[in-house]
Amino acid sequence: MSGLRRVLVANRGEIAVRIVRACHAAGVEAVAVHSDADEGARWVRMADHVQHIGRSAAQKSYLDAEVLLKAAKEAEADSVHPGYGFLSENADFARGVRDAGLAFIGPPPEAIELMGDKATARRTAQSAGVPVVPGSGPCTDQAQAERAAADLGYPLLVKASAGGGGRGIRPVRDAAELREVLPAAQAEAQSAFGDSTVYLERAIPQARHVEVQVLADDHGNVRHLLERDCSVQRRRQKLIEEAPAPQLSDDARRAIAEAAVRLAEHVGYRNAGTVEFLVDADENFYFIEMNTRIQVEHPITEAITGIDLVAEQLRIGGGAPLSFDQDSVRARGAAVELRINAEDPQRGFAPTPGVVTEFELPGGPGIRFDTWIGPGDRVSPFYDSLIAKLVCWGADREQAHDRARQALREFRAEGIATTAGLHERLLAEPDLRRGPVHTTWLEHLLEE
Amino acid sequence: MSGLRRVLVANRGEIAVRIVRACHAAGVEAVAVHSDADEGARWVRMADHVQHIGRSAAQKSYLDAEVLLKAAKEAEADSVHPGYGFLSENADFARGVRDAGLAFIGPPPEAIELMGDKATARRTAQSAGVPVVPGSGPCTDQAQAERAAADLGYPLLVKASAGGGGRGIRPVRDAAELREVLPAAQAEAQSAFGDSTVYLERAIPQARHVEVQVLADDHGNVRHLLERDCSVQRRRQKLIEEAPAPQLSDDARRAIAEAAVRLAEHVGYRNAGTVEFLVDADENFYFIEMNTRIQVEHPITEAITGIDLVAEQLRIGGGAPLSFDQDSVRARGAAVELRINAEDPQRGFAPTPGVVTEFELPGGPGIRFDTWIGPGDRVSPFYDSLIAKLVCWGADREQAHDRARQALREFRAEGIATTAGLHERLLAEPDLRRGPVHTTWLEHLLEE
Repeated sequence: MSGLRRVLVANRGEIAVRIVRACHAAGVEAVAVHSDADEGARWVRMADHVQHIGRSAAQKSYLDAEVLLKAAKEAEADSVHPGYGFLSENADFARGVRDAGLAFIGPPPEAIELMGDKATARRTAQSAGVPVVPGSGPCTDQAQAERAAADLGYPLLVKASAGGGGRGIRPVRDAAELREVLPAAQAEAQSAFGDSTVYLERAIPQARHVEVQVLADDHGNVRHLLERDCSVQRRRQKLIEEAPAPQLSDDARRAIAEAAVRLAEHVGYRNAGTVEFLVDADENFYFIEMNTRIQVEHPITEAITGIDLVAEQLRIGGGAPLSFDQDSVRARGAAVELRINAEDPQRGFAPTPGVVTEFELPGGPGIRFDTWIGPGDRVSPFYDSLIAKLVCWGADREQAHDRARQALREFRAEGIATTAGLHERLLAEPDLRRGPVHTTWLEHLLEE
Repeated sequence: MSGLRRVLVANRGEIAVRIVRACHAAGVEAVAVHSDADEGARWVRMADHVQHIGRSAAQKSYLDAEVLLKAAKEAEADSVHPGYGFLSENADFARGVRDAGLAFIGPPPEAIELMGDKATARRTAQSAGVPVVPGSGPCTDQAQAERAAADLGYPLLVKASAGGGGRGIRPVRDAAELREVLPAAQAEAQSAFGDSTVYLERAIPQARHVEVQVLADDHGNVRHLLERDCSVQRRRQKLIEEAPAPQLSDDARRAIAEAAVRLAEHVGYRNAGTVEFLVDADENFYFIEMNTRIQVEHPITEAITGIDLVAEQLRIGGGAPLSFDQDSVRARGAAVELRINAEDPQRGFAPTPGVVTEFELPGGPGIRFDTWIGPGDRVSPFYDSLIAKLVCWGADREQAHDRARQALREFRAEGIATTAGLHERLLAEPDLRRGPVHTTWLEHLLEE
């Protein structure tokens, strides 16, 4: 059905498990890869073929494009799914896959490049008629940055042009702070992204993070799958996501979704992507970036629309049209995702690698628990700390939250600390229960 | 919200877990009960209060109405949820709960009685204008049975008047067989149901089992939640259920649902119930019985309608109206439930009690796995063999089945034999894949 025969899953953890499942349900074989640390991990046990790709450090395995391409060739895969993180937004990797004659289950490298540089992405959005946060062009020196800042007005954000995923962003309140922050921001941008260029954006007060899921195929179909609210963040890392965005007017919902589709069409987008916006108290919305891959929080969109995003990715990758049309995309009920990380909120969210000795899963109606962990599995210090995603659907937002609280009561992990207890606390907060909250809500709450 | 404060869960196993979850999500406390064999079982650990109710044999605990009422009083419960099986369709128990001043989360005892005797239920259905399988009145002796059989024509079924749940039913092909079977059928009816009365029904060839979920509240609302097809049966025990019923015309769907609502209205029904029908090749439908309780297969209805049946039961039990109206009941996609029993299909489905040493749960989009088992738990010989229900939803029937097959690949139980492997085999059968099958399909397949 999907047109693919064998997919190399160029990733690890829960998204690798997710992709293997989708392959099997679509009748496609899955090739798992693993580093030393991940020998015998769940996605490896589930897959039809296995390739060892190197040492535990990600640079020596999951980030090594060459060894991944070699693994795909050896396993006789006809396609590569990059998942999220690692090489998923690396245009060179996408190009390498294409040049090797394989299908890249993601966008064309040109679209990745257009959206990968944040300054270029902003300009592209503007030319597609999508509103952006008022901001500057690229700033390479102090004087240029100060002039731009004076034009924009404070408070504002210093952002790495090549950044993404919420990294390389610093708020500044005035000119003095800008002078202090700029060299550090440039140095960080250089070390994190290999490019010291930064730019400035006006800070939007009381903003919500609202993002639109898009899917585009090779047959000219560009569809949106409604929006998600991901305003519960700590250091710009999402912790709780919801769909649909609570208390947004239908007009705003529609306008934001249409802007996302417009941008995707403008850049010749293919496969799954997410267009992220800030929405202010008056429902003005501003493009911030586009993630050119499947996202961690994609299951809440699946929960409300009933559309399997990874199955659609496989269809698109194999050249088939999307299985649905825009009119059939309707939200039923509401869903919330809680990211369960192997981190200790009591100790500044320090990662807590170790062996999981007990792991009891929640269940019942509306509950989905995506994980790669079972009793006896080891959370390695080499990779990100996400061990599970608790996705709770309800006929309305209240029921989704009620079910989430019960599911957290049922969940039990021993051997490592997790963020589950923090989620229990957050779901009890009247602000969140009422919803929506702003992107700074969680940090203020944790400071108290 | 539900009007209840504390519910005694008068049951065990997966339905006890299910009810505790629903209580918690609704903000209601749950009182678990357990026999000796079930000490420390999952539903006991999950509950807010616990009552030990006696010895392992069900007669000495879960079937002892007096001890259950005493437990409810001691735990200061304001209501009792009977689950399915055990005392759930015992009118005296329902009356005892009511007389103790507690809410019975189920129908009034009068409705249980009307539907409990199968001959009375048939007459009641007829007077509600619901078609029944052509059949006889009660037969107490051989001559009466033979006259009735001659009127009806063979093949036909001998059924216990007081029977239910598919027990006490014997097919007969001709008068000779009737003479042979009748005394045994009467003796079995006496020993199983305390009443030797039997009656005859014409056998419907090539029949499907189609049942309608109904919910009724104290405010005059009687709603149906569409239908389920439960034709995959062995010895009249359901093994696989689907919703909606595959390949049924919209006219038949509507007519069957309306008949179910008519019957529920006619008997003053309250709470959750299921009206069961046989449907022949021409889509004629015949009432067979009404189950006056929540059913094992209720999750597939939840999966396609998005309505939480146990949450609605709690609402009704607490005097609140249903949370939805008939127009909002719409099927989205399709769902299939696979009953995973601790039985060995290789040895005539013999129960396989024992300690479960490993238990790996499937997951992913659309997968719900309701169980009371974890590694180290013991499946006792005292109770039924259902250990888990694998419920798989998909945007269409094909996706639901594809996901079910992948989920079965992921599921692993060690220490006991289960029916999971049989389900893998059945889902691969072209007949089932195409659907629908008849109620005799599985037995014929297993004989081959």
